[in-house]
Amino acid sequence: MGEFLALLSPQAALERWLNALPDLEPETEELLTLEALGRVTMEPIRAPEPMPFFPRSTVDGYAVRAADTFGASDSLPAYLAVVGEVEMGQAPEFALQPGQAALIYTGGMLPEGADAVVMLEHTQMTMPGEIEVLRSVGVGENVLKIGEDVQVGEEVIPAGVRLRPPEIGGLMGLGITKLRVAKKPRVGILSSGDEVIPPEQPLRPAQVRDINSYSLSALVELEGGLPQRYGIVPDREEVLREVLRRALDENDLVIISAGSSISTRDLTARIIDEMGLPGVLVHGINIRPGKPTILAVCNGKPLLGLSGNPVSALVVAQFFLPPVLGRLLGLRVKRPRARLPARLTLNLPSQAGREDYVPVRLIESAEGLLAEPIFYKSNLIFSLVRADGLLRIPADATGLASGAEVEVWLL
Amino acid sequence: MGEFLALLSPQAALERWLNALPDLEPETEELLTLEALGRVTMEPIRAPEPMPFFPRSTVDGYAVRAADTFGASDSLPAYLAVVGEVEMGQAPEFALQPGQAALIYTGGMLPEGADAVVMLEHTQMTMPGEIEVLRSVGVGENVLKIGEDVQVGEEVIPAGVRLRPPEIGGLMGLGITKLRVAKKPRVGILSSGDEVIPPEQPLRPAQVRDINSYSLSALVELEGGLPQRYGIVPDREEVLREVLRRALDENDLVIISAGSSISTRDLTARIIDEMGLPGVLVHGINIRPGKPTILAVCNGKPLLGLSGNPVSALVVAQFFLPPVLGRLLGLRVKRPRARLPARLTLNLPSQAGREDYVPVRLIESAEGLLAEPIFYKSNLIFSLVRADGLLRIPADATGLASGAEVEVWLL
Repeated sequence: MGEFLALLSPQAALERWLNALPDLEPETEELLTLEALGRVTMEPIRAPEPMPFFPRSTVDGYAVRAADTFGASDSLPAYLAVVGEVEMGQAPEFALQPGQAALIYTGGMLPEGADAVVMLEHTQMTMPGEIEVLRSVGVGENVLKIGEDVQVGEEVIPAGVRLRPPEIGGLMGLGITKLRVAKKPRVGILSSGDEVIPPEQPLRPAQVRDINSYSLSALVELEGGLPQRYGIVPDREEVLREVLRRALDENDLVIISAGSSISTRDLTARIIDEMGLPGVLVHGINIRPGKPTILAVCNGKPLLGLSGNPVSALVVAQFFLPPVLGRLLGLRVKRPRARLPARLTLNLPSQAGREDYVPVRLIESAEGLLAEPIFYKSNLIFSLVRADGLLRIPADATGLASGAEVEVWLL
Repeated sequence: MGEFLALLSPQAALERWLNALPDLEPETEELLTLEALGRVTMEPIRAPEPMPFFPRSTVDGYAVRAADTFGASDSLPAYLAVVGEVEMGQAPEFALQPGQAALIYTGGMLPEGADAVVMLEHTQMTMPGEIEVLRSVGVGENVLKIGEDVQVGEEVIPAGVRLRPPEIGGLMGLGITKLRVAKKPRVGILSSGDEVIPPEQPLRPAQVRDINSYSLSALVELEGGLPQRYGIVPDREEVLREVLRRALDENDLVIISAGSSISTRDLTARIIDEMGLPGVLVHGINIRPGKPTILAVCNGKPLLGLSGNPVSALVVAQFFLPPVLGRLLGLRVKRPRARLPARLTLNLPSQAGREDYVPVRLIESAEGLLAEPIFYKSNLIFSLVRADGLLRIPADATGLASGAEVEVWLL
């Protein structure tokens, strides 16, 4: 317990890490809007034109002067002369005079003089060229005004927004077919350990294949970074120092997953600390799995040291990677992380003061989602493969009771 | 009201649509595991070797024969002879005899004869070559058994699973560096309307730029499909028929967003119905926005007809695209869709019997997330740009009161 109480909470550790990062502007690149899904805007985007660009009908009906319909009803219709039909995509070449109406379809442009549209079902043709209007309309009724969605010059997307399908559509709708976004941060990934071999090699007893380089690359990709793998570094001080130095030079962020023996962890921390100031900021976090995590900043670049255990490495990376990549991407508009409410299926013990993440399977039931914990060891990657998400047990809980409402982060 | 009551709910419409699809095996391709993130497995994957591959220590300490430690305590330690040190990545070349121990690090391989590991902190060196063991260990304590994560031959990932970072890591850990996945379904996307122009063209009054082709392409990409845009089709029967026929021939799914006038909608439905049996299955859904949605299956291929209004089109596509693409991808292990619990900030009216989706902004507060509705019209794409997610008002509600607990789907 004493040992745990001295450690920072994941949230406090994250703040210390991010606060030690300099305010760097990300490098930018110009992309086609079409290829910018998931990228982050680097400058505010303003509307070069209003949207809609012209007064538009929202219904099928007759464009009218609203004043001509005042007081109209079934028993006392207003009579209007039909002077034309608005063709889709064509600006009408006529104007409405008092007492006149024009046939218009949804999306059509109102003729000059018109200021409202009466729905087709509220009219009746009495004879060719004349309609009865059975309902009055107010000025602007059934019409989208010019600039009702966006005004010309309006900031439609601020800097620091990750582009989703609505943004891609909206930009194209404004004729903005390319834009400046943050370059993907390069993320150097190293695995260390004399027992670790590349997946392609035949396995001999006492050896394990590298898992972390690949699960972490996949997570980096999902979170908008560009993974650069540096392979497996043997547990020799001079080699580790050299590869780490190179990875820091060539990347915006470096992740190293090191062996879990005490001497390897200490070696890793010592060498990270040599890489530049301020060096190691956090060594050990009050989280399970993932206690031996290292957070460092060396010459302005963040460095994340993870346990070699694949479950710890991935759980801790899920917590720390998104915010640090967001920072490197210049992400300012942060949307909440998706989490699913569920009910726990059994009692889960945990240590007070420590934040626990437990892999769970989610089961749909008549009473909503159930979260069924998967018993795991932090070395067993397939316990995560069997899981839908991670359940968080907050530090102030001494466990959770069966039936408790919990939040699950999808993996 | 009467009109609405005759319409299917979105869920019932979806079921009718999916049930009309034939059971087709997706086309497959072999990919490097490294490049398979987000793809769907097409055959069960079995472990070619056990994981771990050898008995592994989970701590730093001494490998022992558990029987030699029985009854050991601080006051009555067991004395063992240290006969060696296990090097990482090397199978030990010695075996433990009764009364012997070997230094071992986390992840090291147990020597023959050893069946447990005593943690370093529960031992004490008395003289070179001898330790005191201060705590007894049971057989298997601090040891990962061979196959404890996966047994040789075990199905580690079934067919029909979308690959996430844990799967990528787990596959590489088993030496599975390539695998067979579903090809990305080709999704043909058409926009129709005489008023619609490509985003690159200068805008004239009465015209609007194509939004839907691009917001829908982006969504298709996110959901694992391969968008193929067929551009803008004028509202002429013979042209629409020809382009739609070609799109159906060349794709696994076709999405058409058509103008919103009644005549255009009817034309679209009629032409879709000509494309093959069974044709249009659903025309009109009890959802807002998106009532005029068309669901069809023509000669075994699904076809989704959306309103030309960009908000309707995207909201409805968010509902129908993931399940139909999941079907085309052979996705069998479905994970729940992420949704965020939040509290509504104001009263929201809605029509009983109709399912409403309302764009909301999410605000973090001391009491948790707040969902603030954005008033919108279904033509105004920037109302979605301003939103974090969509709030669903179930059909059986006549609205939601301020403070109600709601679920928000992230956009």
